[in-house]
Amino acid sequence: MDLQGRNLVTTLDLTPDEVRGLIDSAIALKRGERDAALSRKVAALVFFNPSVRTRISCESAMARYGGTAIAINPGKDTWNFETKEGVVMDANTQEHIRELAPVITRMCHFVGIRKSELITVGSAQGEASGDYYELAKDEFIHRFIEFAEAPVVNLESNRWHPMQSLADSTTMVEKLGETRGQKYVLTWAWHPKSLPVATPHSQLMSAVNLGMDVTVLRPEGYGLEPEVMAAAKERAEALGGTVSETDDQDAAYAGARVVCAKAWASLDYYGRFDQEAKDKAPLRPDWIVNEAKMAKTADGLFMHCLPVRRNIIVTDGVLDGPLCVVKDEAENRLWTAAAVFDAIGKK
Amino acid sequence: MDLQGRNLVTTLDLTPDEVRGLIDSAIALKRGERDAALSRKVAALVFFNPSVRTRISCESAMARYGGTAIAINPGKDTWNFETKEGVVMDANTQEHIRELAPVITRMCHFVGIRKSELITVGSAQGEASGDYYELAKDEFIHRFIEFAEAPVVNLESNRWHPMQSLADSTTMVEKLGETRGQKYVLTWAWHPKSLPVATPHSQLMSAVNLGMDVTVLRPEGYGLEPEVMAAAKERAEALGGTVSETDDQDAAYAGARVVCAKAWASLDYYGRFDQEAKDKAPLRPDWIVNEAKMAKTADGLFMHCLPVRRNIIVTDGVLDGPLCVVKDEAENRLWTAAAVFDAIGKK
Amino acid sequence: MDLQGRNLVTTLDLTPDEVRGLIDSAIALKRGERDAALSRKVAALVFFNPSVRTRISCESAMARYGGTAIAINPGKDTWNFETKEGVVMDANTQEHIRELAPVITRMCHFVGIRKSELITVGSAQGEASGDYYELAKDEFIHRFIEFAEAPVVNLESNRWHPMQSLADSTTMVEKLGETRGQKYVLTWAWHPKSLPVATPHSQLMSAVNLGMDVTVLRPEGYGLEPEVMAAAKERAEALGGTVSETDDQDAAYAGARVVCAKAWASLDYYGRFDQEAKDKAPLRPDWIVNEAKMAKTADGLFMHCLPVRRNIIVTDGVLDGPLCVVKDEAENRLWTAAAVFDAIGKK
Repeated sequence: MDLQGRNLVTTLDLTPDEVRGLIDSAIALKRGERDAALSRKVAALVFFNPSVRTRISCESAMARYGGTAIAINPGKDTWNFETKEGVVMDANTQEHIRELAPVITRMCHFVGIRKSELITVGSAQGEASGDYYELAKDEFIHRFIEFAEAPVVNLESNRWHPMQSLADSTTMVEKLGETRGQKYVLTWAWHPKSLPVATPHSQLMSAVNLGMDVTVLRPEGYGLEPEVMAAAKERAEALGGTVSETDDQDAAYAGARVVCAKAWASLDYYGRFDQEAKDKAPLRPDWIVNEAKMAKTADGLFMHCLPVRRNIIVTDGVLDGPLCVVKDEAENRLWTAAAVFDAIGKK
Repeated sequence: MDLQGRNLVTTLDLTPDEVRGLIDSAIALKRGERDAALSRKVAALVFFNPSVRTRISCESAMARYGGTAIAINPGKDTWNFETKEGVVMDANTQEHIRELAPVITRMCHFVGIRKSELITVGSAQGEASGDYYELAKDEFIHRFIEFAEAPVVNLESNRWHPMQSLADSTTMVEKLGETRGQKYVLTWAWHPKSLPVATPHSQLMSAVNLGMDVTVLRPEGYGLEPEVMAAAKERAEALGGTVSETDDQDAAYAGARVVCAKAWASLDYYGRFDQEAKDKAPLRPDWIVNEAKMAKTADGLFMHCLPVRRNIIVTDGVLDGPLCVVKDEAENRLWTAAAVFDAIGKK
Repeated sequence: MDLQGRNLVTTLDLTPDEVRGLIDSAIALKRGERDAALSRKVAALVFFNPSVRTRISCESAMARYGGTAIAINPGKDTWNFETKEGVVMDANTQEHIRELAPVITRMCHFVGIRKSELITVGSAQGEASGDYYELAKDEFIHRFIEFAEAPVVNLESNRWHPMQSLADSTTMVEKLGETRGQKYVLTWAWHPKSLPVATPHSQLMSAVNLGMDVTVLRPEGYGLEPEVMAAAKERAEALGGTVSETDDQDAAYAGARVVCAKAWASLDYYGRFDQEAKDKAPLRPDWIVNEAKMAKTADGLFMHCLPVRRNIIVTDGVLDGPLCVVKDEAENRLWTAAAVFDAIGKK
C-alpha cells in the first residue's frame, strides 16, 4: 500500500480500497510476512491527552521496525501553542503553529497528534465551553497540517479517530472473513462521564468501509453527527451495504454478527455536561451490554475500543466470554499503526 | 542463560544456579564478549513511582542492543487502573488489569513494573494505610501477570527488588571472586523517611545466593519479614552459607568483607510512620556507617543501592573512599538488566 | 571532526576552527553524504526545563543514526539532586551529584543537560532569587562534569546555549556563503517576561566565530555580560571581525545582512523581575522587529531561535516574509546535534 506523503486526519480520508490495502498490509506484518520501511525513521507523537493503546501501539510499531517515536506532552514538557492568525502573543501562548509545524516536521518523518477536549484521566470531566460544532472543526490538527512538511496522522481529535477505525476493520476481516452484508451494531452505552464522538464516528466507518449492514443503536437524542451519518450512508450505498439508526434494542441485537459498544456525549449537551449526567441517569439500567442481549445475536462478536469500564459499558460475563475480541482489536492497533506509517512514509 | 518466557517477580524466583548464569551473562555483556538478543524488541516499563537507575538501566540496556523501552507513568499520561474482581467501574478507575495486561503484552515483548507505596520524591512520605502484609501481597504485579501474555519483570514492588539483587551479586562476584564463606553485613541505617523493605529483602538474597555468611545488623524492632528470613536461611544452608541477625554493631562489622547499608521502615509501623519518625529519632547518631566502623572490617567493601543520602546513611569519608563500590554496583544494574531481558526473551 | 571525549558547556569551548568543522559535518549529514557514528549509542537528556526543539533535535539526531535518547525530568520522574559539598542530606534532596553523574555516564554514552532558572511554560515568570552572577556560575552542569565519566553537552544553562550557536552559524554559512566581514545585528526585543541571556550570548558568538561584523543593538541597561562581550571582541579581532554595541536602531539595521532578534532580561534586574516588567514597558513600541526596519537592511535575513511570540518580538510580516530563515535555523538544530554527538563520541 503506497500512500506516500498522505495525511490521515478524518476517517473519510481513506477510500474503502485504501482501507483494504492497509488491512492486508497490517495482517501481513502481523504474520511476519513482510517488513515495514521504518528503519531509522522518526515519528513525533504530540499528546494533548493521556493514552495507553495509542501511544504504545505507535511507539512499538516504530520500534519493531527499527524506527523511533518521540512522545511530547504540550504544556507540560513543552510550550503552550497558538493557532489563531494575527494574534499579538503577549499572554500565555509561546509558540505559533506556523513555526511549530514546520519545525517538528523537518526534524521528524511523521507526526501523530492526539487533541480532544473530552479525553481525561479518572473521574475528571473534560470541558467543552463551545458547542460541539466548534470543537468538531479540530482546528489544531488542520492548522498544523497547513504548515507541516511531513505526513500527519490523527491519533484522536474531537471528531475522528481513524487509527481505531482501521484496527476495528482489520479485526472484523480477521474474524469474519467475508464481511459484506453482515450485520454490525454500534450501540451506545451509559457512562458516568460525557465522552467524545470521535471513536463512534470512526467505528461506524470501520463497518461501512467493509460493506456491512450497520445499525446505530442509541437512545433518542444520542444520534451521531448528521453529516457523518450522511457520509456513512453514501459510502455504504456505493459498497452495497446499509446504515440505519434505532433505539429498539431487541431488533438491533437480533442476528448481529458484531456488537461494538461505546459511550458518547449527546451533541446537544456540549457545554452542559453536568446537566447531561442528570438527564441520562434513567438510561443507565437499560443501556449496558449483557449476556441476555448478546444471546439474541447470531454468535455476535463483542468489540470495544478500550479502555472499558466493566459492568458499566458491558458486563464481566460478556467481556470474559469466548466471543469477546477486544484484545485482538487492541493488538491490531499495533499492526495497523505500522501499516499506516509504512504506507505514508517517503519511499 | 535461557529463561525464555519466565517472569521475575520475587527475588526467590531464580535459583542460585540461575543467578550465577545471569551474573556470567552480565559480565560477558559488560566485557563486550557477547551480544544480547534484543534487536527490535520492545519493553514497556510501567512506573508508578519515580526512578533514575532503574529506568535508565532498563532503557539503556534495550537501546544498546537495538531494542527500545517505552516508559509509562500511570495516572499521569495514562488511565487509572483497576485490579479488583467484579467491580462496577463507575468511579475513578478506567481500565481493568484484565484488559491492560494482555493489551500491553501483545504490543511489547517484555513488561517491567515498578509499584511501591513507599517510593516518593523529596521529603514526601509514602502512604501505607493498610498493614505491611497487605502491601506485601504486591497485588498489582501478580494480577498483571495473571493476564499477561509476555514475561514481566519486577522493577521494585513493596516486597521485592530482584533487579537490585542481581546487580549486587554481580558486583560481589566481580570484586571478591570466590564469595563462599565471606562475611556480608546488611546494616540498617537511620533515615528521615520510612522506606520500603523490598531492597533489603533482595540484598539479603544477593549474598545468600552466593553462599556468603550473612549478618543482618539492625536495632530491635527492625527485623526483616520473618518469612523472607526463613527462606534466606533455608537457601543459605543448602549452599553452605549462614544467615544471622544481631544489633551488636561491633561484632557485625568485625571481619566483614562487605557492608551493605540500607534504611527501611519497621514492619510494625506501617500506617503509623509519623510515630515511627519520633520513636526512631534516638537511633540516628548510632546507626550511620562511618570510617570508624568500616575500620573494623577486613577491608570491607561498602555497598548501597543508591540514591543515598550523604552523612545520613553513610559519611562522605566512606562514600568517597577507595573501598566504596556503589558506582560499580549501579553500573551493574545496566548489564544485569540486559542479561535478564536477553534471557527471558523469545528465542 | 573528532572531538572525542570533549564536553560542550560554554560557547567558547569550541575554537572557530572546531566550529567550522562541526558546520561542515552538519551540512554533510543534512545532505546525506555521511553517516554519524551513533548506532546503539545512548544519550541521557536531563531536562530541568521544558523544551521542544532541543529535545526533538537531540532525540531525532540519535534515532536517525541508530542511537537512542532517554529524556529525564528531575523532580518529576526522578529524585531531587544535591550539588553542595559536605551536606547532611536530611531534607528534600535525595541524591548527590557525586553519585548521579558517574552513574548516568556509566549507563549512557553522552549526557545533555538543560538547567536554567528562567525557562518556563506559558506566562509564568522564572525565579532568580540570587543575582545574575550567582546563576551564571551554572553550578549544576559544572559539578556534574566534575564527576562524569562520559561527555556532557549543555542544552542551555543560565549563561550559555552552545547548541543554538552552532545551528545559527550553520544557517548563516548555508545562506550567505562567505560570512567574513558581513554585518550581523543581534537586536534586543521587548517581551512580557524576563528571559535568560544564554541564547543571546551564544548567538553573539555564532556570528563572531564566522568573522562577521557584529552589532549588539539594545536599549540602555540591556548590555550582555561584560566578560562575554570582552571574549567576543577578543575572538573577533583574531578573526578580522568586529563587535560593537549601540542603541541606535537606524544605524544598526542599515546594511545588515542578518538581523537576529532575542528578548533577554537586564542583568541589573535579576531577582526584581516584577520591577523590570514595569520599567521596560515604555520600550515595547520601539523594540520590535518589523518590515520598516528590515527594509533598511541589505536584504537582511531574519533569524530567531524560536519559540517566538508573534507581533511581540517580530511582526507577522517579517516572520512570513521571504527573508525569514527561522525554520532552517531550527532544522539545523537537528543536524548540528548529530554532528556534535558524532564528534564527541568514543571512536
